[in-house]
Amino acid sequence: MEIEKILKKENIKKQLKISGWIRFNRSSKEIVFIDLYDGSNLNGIQIICKKKLLSSKDFEILYKAPLYSSFTIIGKLNLNIKNKNYEFIVSKIESYNLADSEIPLGKKEHTLEFLRIQAHLRIRTKLFQSIMRIRSYCSQLIHFYFMKEEFYYIHTPIITKNDAEGAGEIFFVNIKKNNHSFFNGQGTLTVSGQLQEESYTQSLKKTYTFGPTFRAENSNTSRHANEFWMIEPEIAFADYFELMNLGENILKFVAKNILEKYEEELIFLGNFFKLDLIKNLENLINMKIKKITYKNALKILNEAKDKNNLFKDDKFIFGNELSTEHEKYLAEKYANGPIYVYDYPAKNSSFYMYRNNDNETARGFDLLVPRIGELIGGSQREDNYQRLIKIINEKKLELKELTWYLDLRKYGYAKSSGFGIGFERLIMFITGVENIRDVLPFPRTPGKLEF
Amino acid sequence: MEIEKILKKENIKKQLKISGWIRFNRSSKEIVFIDLYDGSNLNGIQIICKKKLLSSKDFEILYKAPLYSSFTIIGKLNLNIKNKNYEFIVSKIESYNLADSEIPLGKKEHTLEFLRIQAHLRIRTKLFQSIMRIRSYCSQLIHFYFMKEEFYYIHTPIITKNDAEGAGEIFFVNIKKNNHSFFNGQGTLTVSGQLQEESYTQSLKKTYTFGPTFRAENSNTSRHANEFWMIEPEIAFADYFELMNLGENILKFVAKNILEKYEEELIFLGNFFKLDLIKNLENLINMKIKKITYKNALKILNEAKDKNNLFKDDKFIFGNELSTEHEKYLAEKYANGPIYVYDYPAKNSSFYMYRNNDNETARGFDLLVPRIGELIGGSQREDNYQRLIKIINEKKLELKELTWYLDLRKYGYAKSSGFGIGFERLIMFITGVENIRDVLPFPRTPGKLEF
Repeated sequence: MEIEKILKKENIKKQLKISGWIRFNRSSKEIVFIDLYDGSNLNGIQIICKKKLLSSKDFEILYKAPLYSSFTIIGKLNLNIKNKNYEFIVSKIESYNLADSEIPLGKKEHTLEFLRIQAHLRIRTKLFQSIMRIRSYCSQLIHFYFMKEEFYYIHTPIITKNDAEGAGEIFFVNIKKNNHSFFNGQGTLTVSGQLQEESYTQSLKKTYTFGPTFRAENSNTSRHANEFWMIEPEIAFADYFELMNLGENILKFVAKNILEKYEEELIFLGNFFKLDLIKNLENLINMKIKKITYKNALKILNEAKDKNNLFKDDKFIFGNELSTEHEKYLAEKYANGPIYVYDYPAKNSSFYMYRNNDNETARGFDLLVPRIGELIGGSQREDNYQRLIKIINEKKLELKELTWYLDLRKYGYAKSSGFGIGFERLIMFITGVENIRDVLPFPRTPGKLEF
Repeated sequence: MEIEKILKKENIKKQLKISGWIRFNRSSKEIVFIDLYDGSNLNGIQIICKKKLLSSKDFEILYKAPLYSSFTIIGKLNLNIKNKNYEFIVSKIESYNLADSEIPLGKKEHTLEFLRIQAHLRIRTKLFQSIMRIRSYCSQLIHFYFMKEEFYYIHTPIITKNDAEGAGEIFFVNIKKNNHSFFNGQGTLTVSGQLQEESYTQSLKKTYTFGPTFRAENSNTSRHANEFWMIEPEIAFADYFELMNLGENILKFVAKNILEKYEEELIFLGNFFKLDLIKNLENLINMKIKKITYKNALKILNEAKDKNNLFKDDKFIFGNELSTEHEKYLAEKYANGPIYVYDYPAKNSSFYMYRNNDNETARGFDLLVPRIGELIGGSQREDNYQRLIKIINEKKLELKELTWYLDLRKYGYAKSSGFGIGFERLIMFITGVENIRDVLPFPRTPGKLEF
């Protein structure tokens, strides 16, 4: 049985069996204290090994066991009245496997940089257990939300032939190092499932993807990885405002449930990263997320610049892209929480975005959040066949490769909108983690492929 | 509101708005009948367009609308007393987008081969809507099962450097067609998340992956694709029998819930593929899945050979691999449903499988199911550091690349077992689909990359 499930009043004095690994130990002649964990909770359980209650062989083993040794033991649950904690009085070892005492993880705290080198072992720390357990639950909550709301999960292909953004570096897939014949040398790793997904949305109405996506950019920042996970809902017969509301609902649903199940871990992580993560989520849950136009965002940034002497070298004129600094200002200072910005300049917008009648903006939107910047990016899609061809030609994309995508507009296209949530950024927002390398189990960044 | 949600007694006579696409229409001078679908149910809803209830412009549009045109319409729900079906009496068109009448999908039934060429449009058919809606729900159910049972979902990397099976063709990932520098030319697409996952299992105890996996095999069979999805649970402190039971529980959970929600679709698919899919799932739910050893399987096959004159050219001696024909015999004729075979010959087993004391078998197991053959493949893992090194050397695998994996055995490895479910095969088992190309949204097989 898992440790978390054992820690109940009704189990006190019962003979039980538990399994786990040693995180911490402290020995004296007559007694050994061990922190045993099995991943089911933050702190595991304290094991009390009393010499007088154990065979001398078993006591010897527990006395000498190095950190991270694994044990299955039999004993009884006890409520320690002094410190009000449960503890486990062991009477017998059922099985065990001792760790080599030279393990690179010790009792002291290690730096995040050091732990990245030990990517196969770092999940043994309380820190990474907290992050990765929240990551797991967050994924499951997202699937659960969409199941509840009757969205269809579409497994869009990973090996593709096109680059939905029409920009950015992409990875090529070959069968052999120097042989490109398998997919005629055209296989690339997907940058987004959106285009293929739209074909399904135009029949099933409410769809989403949740899978790995790739960018071959040779950049080393704390917010970029070459392989990351993205959630992409798409709804037919829906405009972009409806999708902004969906994004808000998803985030609130996730926040509420994470808060309920992982409060202890959020406090622990908050202490580590010097943030009030509980307040951060409560703030999200209780606020109504504002939606402002890009033009309004410029106005706000210009006012901040004049008034507070911020962003010294920048000019905010129509057409400028917002930098991470500006995005953070809007979320952290102006909105004091997440905020939507919409109707971006058309000329910087992806080919598939719906152009507004003003001839200068497109129906794109971003959700900006404190600490992270852009968490969600989405749009209403261009629904007119002729207009879409025009934009594809203007952007000099290969029309031939997009014939099937254009077909969707030809054959009864319903207005459609969708967005992508950068899953790692969501986990960073929730857990306070500052570097994307620490929310991915085995991060892929340029040259990093040891595991 | 979705069509499925509208079809309720309490909505009769209420003014409602619905959106969807035309699947079928039949027109006369005074009235048009339209089957409108929105993906929320199998049959959509019948729309009644009466000339006298509509503006002449609206009637004209509905009268002439080609198949697959999209509509948002206003009207009232009615219960047709004669045929006991709900129908929708339309009074106004809110918006619409007419399909080009040259759409390759018509009213008549198309072959599966033809529909594969129209992979971006085939989801508009009842057949593919049924398959893909079941696929989606099945994915969600699997995540829900693991959430309920408190397993941790681990996103193991897609770009890797190793081939967990130590065999099979793999895809290489490059940044440019002729430049292998990004990951030092060593990036490959994962064939299984198991090895990386084990590092997490050795800390969190109950884990799973559910993601895309790849094989670069240049084979064209009805059961193989180059890109497919796999579910891989792994439990520490568990032997292989425990995992076989987990597999049984997952399949029964999925079967029960699919049966409950998609009975109508299963009947429809059963008619199409000439199978009793309801009985197939009920059989799984009600049976206790047998577990037989590989040696016993050989005995059963030999007896069948002698008695019924089957498998003419085969000799069943220890060490032979079971072919799909044999696997199907065991499931279809011997067990009359799914059956586990375990303790396969060690010499054919992957390097990470636990070797039994008999020196000839390893703790691998397969679940064989009717029509498909192998649906699940798994094993207990070798837990001894020295023995694992010995096998890696015997199999001439690169020890250096597996150092981190060996570390897991060095530092307090707990007995561990896991398996992989071929997700597409599961969908084929449930829906009766015979070709893997018809359960994947955009299948990737040699040379196929149009979408």
